[in-house]
Amino acid sequence: MARPVDVVILAAGKGTRMKSALPKVLQRLGGRPLLGHVLAVAGALGARRTVVVTGHGADAVEAALPGLAPGLAVQAVRQMPQLGTGHAVQQALPLLDDDGVTLVLSGDVPLTRPETLAALIAAQTAAGLDALALLTVTLDDPHGYGRIVRDDQGAVRAIVEEKDATDAQRRLTEVYSGILAAPTARLRQWLARLDNRNAQGEYYLTDVVGHAVADGAPVVAHRITDAVEVAGVNSPAQLAALERAHQRRVADALMAQGVRLADPARLDVRGELVCGQDVEIDVNCVFEGRVVLGDGVRVGANCVIANATVEAGAVIHPFTHIDGEAAGVVVGPGARVGPFARLRPGTRLGADVHIGNFVEVKNSTLGTGAKANHLAYLGDATVGERVNYGAGSITANYDGANKHRTVIEADVHVGSNCVLVAPVTLGAGGTVGAGSTITKDTPAGALTVARAKPVTVMGWQRPTKKRPDAA
Amino acid sequence: MARPVDVVILAAGKGTRMKSALPKVLQRLGGRPLLGHVLAVAGALGARRTVVVTGHGADAVEAALPGLAPGLAVQAVRQMPQLGTGHAVQQALPLLDDDGVTLVLSGDVPLTRPETLAALIAAQTAAGLDALALLTVTLDDPHGYGRIVRDDQGAVRAIVEEKDATDAQRRLTEVYSGILAAPTARLRQWLARLDNRNAQGEYYLTDVVGHAVADGAPVVAHRITDAVEVAGVNSPAQLAALERAHQRRVADALMAQGVRLADPARLDVRGELVCGQDVEIDVNCVFEGRVVLGDGVRVGANCVIANATVEAGAVIHPFTHIDGEAAGVVVGPGARVGPFARLRPGTRLGADVHIGNFVEVKNSTLGTGAKANHLAYLGDATVGERVNYGAGSITANYDGANKHRTVIEADVHVGSNCVLVAPVTLGAGGTVGAGSTITKDTPAGALTVARAKPVTVMGWQRPTKKRPDAA
Amino acid sequence: MARPVDVVILAAGKGTRMKSALPKVLQRLGGRPLLGHVLAVAGALGARRTVVVTGHGADAVEAALPGLAPGLAVQAVRQMPQLGTGHAVQQALPLLDDDGVTLVLSGDVPLTRPETLAALIAAQTAAGLDALALLTVTLDDPHGYGRIVRDDQGAVRAIVEEKDATDAQRRLTEVYSGILAAPTARLRQWLARLDNRNAQGEYYLTDVVGHAVADGAPVVAHRITDAVEVAGVNSPAQLAALERAHQRRVADALMAQGVRLADPARLDVRGELVCGQDVEIDVNCVFEGRVVLGDGVRVGANCVIANATVEAGAVIHPFTHIDGEAAGVVVGPGARVGPFARLRPGTRLGADVHIGNFVEVKNSTLGTGAKANHLAYLGDATVGERVNYGAGSITANYDGANKHRTVIEADVHVGSNCVLVAPVTLGAGGTVGAGSTITKDTPAGALTVARAKPVTVMGWQRPTKKRPDAA
Repeated sequence: MARPVDVVILAAGKGTRMKSALPKVLQRLGGRPLLGHVLAVAGALGARRTVVVTGHGADAVEAALPGLAPGLAVQAVRQMPQLGTGHAVQQALPLLDDDGVTLVLSGDVPLTRPETLAALIAAQTAAGLDALALLTVTLDDPHGYGRIVRDDQGAVRAIVEEKDATDAQRRLTEVYSGILAAPTARLRQWLARLDNRNAQGEYYLTDVVGHAVADGAPVVAHRITDAVEVAGVNSPAQLAALERAHQRRVADALMAQGVRLADPARLDVRGELVCGQDVEIDVNCVFEGRVVLGDGVRVGANCVIANATVEAGAVIHPFTHIDGEAAGVVVGPGARVGPFARLRPGTRLGADVHIGNFVEVKNSTLGTGAKANHLAYLGDATVGERVNYGAGSITANYDGANKHRTVIEADVHVGSNCVLVAPVTLGAGGTVGAGSTITKDTPAGALTVARAKPVTVMGWQRPTKKRPDAA
Repeated sequence: MARPVDVVILAAGKGTRMKSALPKVLQRLGGRPLLGHVLAVAGALGARRTVVVTGHGADAVEAALPGLAPGLAVQAVRQMPQLGTGHAVQQALPLLDDDGVTLVLSGDVPLTRPETLAALIAAQTAAGLDALALLTVTLDDPHGYGRIVRDDQGAVRAIVEEKDATDAQRRLTEVYSGILAAPTARLRQWLARLDNRNAQGEYYLTDVVGHAVADGAPVVAHRITDAVEVAGVNSPAQLAALERAHQRRVADALMAQGVRLADPARLDVRGELVCGQDVEIDVNCVFEGRVVLGDGVRVGANCVIANATVEAGAVIHPFTHIDGEAAGVVVGPGARVGPFARLRPGTRLGADVHIGNFVEVKNSTLGTGAKANHLAYLGDATVGERVNYGAGSITANYDGANKHRTVIEADVHVGSNCVLVAPVTLGAGGTVGAGSTITKDTPAGALTVARAKPVTVMGWQRPTKKRPDAA
Repeated sequence: MARPVDVVILAAGKGTRMKSALPKVLQRLGGRPLLGHVLAVAGALGARRTVVVTGHGADAVEAALPGLAPGLAVQAVRQMPQLGTGHAVQQALPLLDDDGVTLVLSGDVPLTRPETLAALIAAQTAAGLDALALLTVTLDDPHGYGRIVRDDQGAVRAIVEEKDATDAQRRLTEVYSGILAAPTARLRQWLARLDNRNAQGEYYLTDVVGHAVADGAPVVAHRITDAVEVAGVNSPAQLAALERAHQRRVADALMAQGVRLADPARLDVRGELVCGQDVEIDVNCVFEGRVVLGDGVRVGANCVIANATVEAGAVIHPFTHIDGEAAGVVVGPGARVGPFARLRPGTRLGADVHIGNFVEVKNSTLGTGAKANHLAYLGDATVGERVNYGAGSITANYDGANKHRTVIEADVHVGSNCVLVAPVTLGAGGTVGAGSTITKDTPAGALTVARAKPVTVMGWQRPTKKRPDAA
């Protein structure tokens, strides 16, 4: 591209049909606000400047901007009141230099591919310095959309709205997408000529086509066929439909890389899922944040995994919930996790670690071959290699005010239903007898038991069922 | 409507292809028997009388009626033996007065909209006191259905069965739905003239069309296009297809209200789901009974929630199972529940309560800010504000014969792996040390510990692996 | 069939687009390798001999063969190098006798029905001793496939590849499936005449059609319309698409038997699922291995069940994980399992047993009416009738080296948070007090308690929150 590209994103709409307190462009798709998708496209295009036109919910949208476009030069301008799409672009133009090409996008159209917009800009460039380029799409059912009217040579003459269209025009299936690219200097002129003499009393961006034609400027269209790329979100139903389209794209991309999905229609990725070779993902899994699955990793049915790295050959059994949040979770090579396991932030499982059913691990490191197979809690613990952590055992890491660390050295065997009251260290190779509450460090290689002596009452009479009226 | 409407519901069929011991009209769709859906429509229409014609499984169907139509004047008549649809309606007519309009419905056609039937009755009324009105539907593939044959003026002349149809008639795409409305007095006459001279030896209700035409009575059709409204259930595959259509309707209605669904194809509502503003429901959730979700409630993936109220701002994490049954469950505002939590009948969580993983709560009240975050059981307990209930702790509420209550007053801290043997009260602000079994009330503000002294055996030799032949 | 049928299965392809270390024909569909599906079809046809032509990954494929085709006479021949499909069949023919009919199948086309192939062979037989029979399929979009060109009498004249086709031929929608049947003696002659003078330099099996026509041998086609039957797997996306088609077939077959599925699109059966009458399966369940569900069994949402028998009237609540592996699991009649239960190999639940939430059972037998309702582990245990096993209780079955057995005789009541250190026997009718660790046998009918005496420290000061800089 000869000229720099500046991007204007229309994000002032109310989104009444969303019936939400959240501004429409902050609604999430694939776990990311709609506006974040559009800003990412602007970033991928190498936009020089990006101007977001805010209006409804402007405070919230502007507050969200820095997080949505890290590293991108984004400015916000407010459109108050909202007098139409042309008026919206007018608010942005003072921030843009005349030497560029302005690409107008919508903050509620999240799934346009960068390569499509690059092709639109290339079409603009090819058509000349003065050219206006429209992104258009062919629809099976164009009802309700503005039709693209071309002359005999195929040049675009106008966008005709449904209500103004002749019968012949209504049969046209090429419609305007809402996205256009124009030389900023000319766009400024055309916008200045807009008026609001129409039923809505609004300044329409589409009217620039007429001004361009009147000026003799070339008007070209880059036509696509995938309606998903230009679909906007106006309602929860449309948001859900695009969510599924997005997830299908993600699933297709993963499968093209070799990932084996039991059901592409039952995968949800809200963030980045990086997979090695021969990764298998069973039905109904959800991935959030950044998740890395190494070679040969298998993820069972109904898992929810967020912000985690699962190394080669590890197996995540069904019904496993992993969320590393900021601290992350690492599942070591060959480890076995689940079913019904939960790994929380700061969990680091070494190679061949086994975490079994109804086990929670938080902010803990487990050495190679350590096992916690049944109904247990490990929090703020450092667990050595080959440790066997018994069923029902708990690290009491919280004294009601502060968190303390439990250290279980290598080869320790912790019996069932023990409590390890932190801070405490269990010496290497030691054994803790079942049912013990350990409040002090235990020596290496020793057996430590804290256990009351059983007392038996022979011929004991059990309580009997009380009559309801006595209950 | 000038005249009262009486409803006859045909519910005598066997449903052989269901291969079930349950009568077909009692098979469930959206958690409710098919016949319950049809009765609800009759109720919505304000039917004066509703007569259900039973036959196969009549005892079971009649026993179910009171529960299916609370507040509705429903009578049952038996059709024994079953000699056809016309014969079935004949059984019902003695219960109906001549001054009304009879609407004939099928007990296995669950998804007709009340407004559709109101329109049918309006069409009947508009066509005159003697008119017969048929509900018809346009099908892309009408094969196998009785075609509606009209004259040049568009008046209905006949219903022609597939096998009797000419080639031209076979190309007709408007078919009879099985639903009709007729003035009761005339219907009685027409039914009296039916005969069973046909291949099946049955009395067909559709033959009344011929008698009406012969009498010069107007025969009109109210035509719809949504085949789901008139689809019947004859097999598990048809039942499943209608279940999905029903769930899609429910999902669409929720989204139109503003509810955000991650996947409308993976939502199951079997009862009533009432949602506030900005409710988000993740994939693969099931709701049963009456469930109320307040403003801003988020429900994670793979939750099953029944008979519960979740108040504003509460978050239900994935893999949560809630069933309030008759007693109900209340999750207070801002509470956090799950993942892997189970709330059972009589659970009342106050504001900002946290219930974490592998925690079961039953018939218990938790005050504001109370927490039970890990592997715990609270049954028949009254838990005060800000109580911290330790990992692995259990209320022993059942002595083998009776259930007893545990009272944990405000600000108590219960350590890990404790047992509270009910009836017992822990005084406010007290602390119970980890691993303690508490059988008597504890004083306020005190630390109570029941714990054996640890004994250490130095240089203890662990058991060694026995040889297999010795095992 | 007059002549014996021998089957040649082409299984030498690399499957580059699978991007997997596993040979393509060993990729799994419905839990079984693709080649296993094809071998099962050969078995169902009563093939005399089956020859698998291996190439890429030959060692792995040949090592897998015995397990894939138990009881079938299967031989492998290697095609090294791979010089085309005709060359592949040439490698197999030396193993086959001239008196038979050779059926050529592909190891990556898993869902051909045996009856379709039987019909193909019948068509071959009917057309004469010399006839070549092709399996063809009509496609809506035949683009890219070899079209079947017939003469005026409907006899097949040629298979014309897309690139060689005339415009008229491109409009033909009948395409070759890759599957054919031919008399072995003639096939041997036709293959001997193949050459590799084509763009790929390969010997094409399809060229036998030309030789057959040249010889005046009848060439017939058995045409089908279900493209799934002849669809091959070349990529993870195609594998996933066929997986869903296969699962839909399984769901349809189950529904035809009377099984009620809440959502046929959310069922995965990887093995054999045998159902009695009035079985109900809720959404999103996965079945693996051999699973038998008795009359009236209900399986809740999101269950994973493998290698198990669930007897009549039992209810499996949501989020239940059962895997019997080789030892199997039996859930007795009327039992209640889950939610959040896990049954592992060797579990035998008697009638009316209740296994509740967060309970794991392994290699244990429970008598009629026994209950373990909350957060518990039963491993290597024999549990008598009517036993009540308390919340949080654990069998300590593993001493770090060996597994030992716990015997709980009839009518024992085990309190909450107990540990039973195996080997140990609790005598019939006895009671174990909450929080007890039991290491020795307890007498019948007695109360046994091992519990420390509580000590109370009045006015105890709780730890206070440390300042962050001191942490």
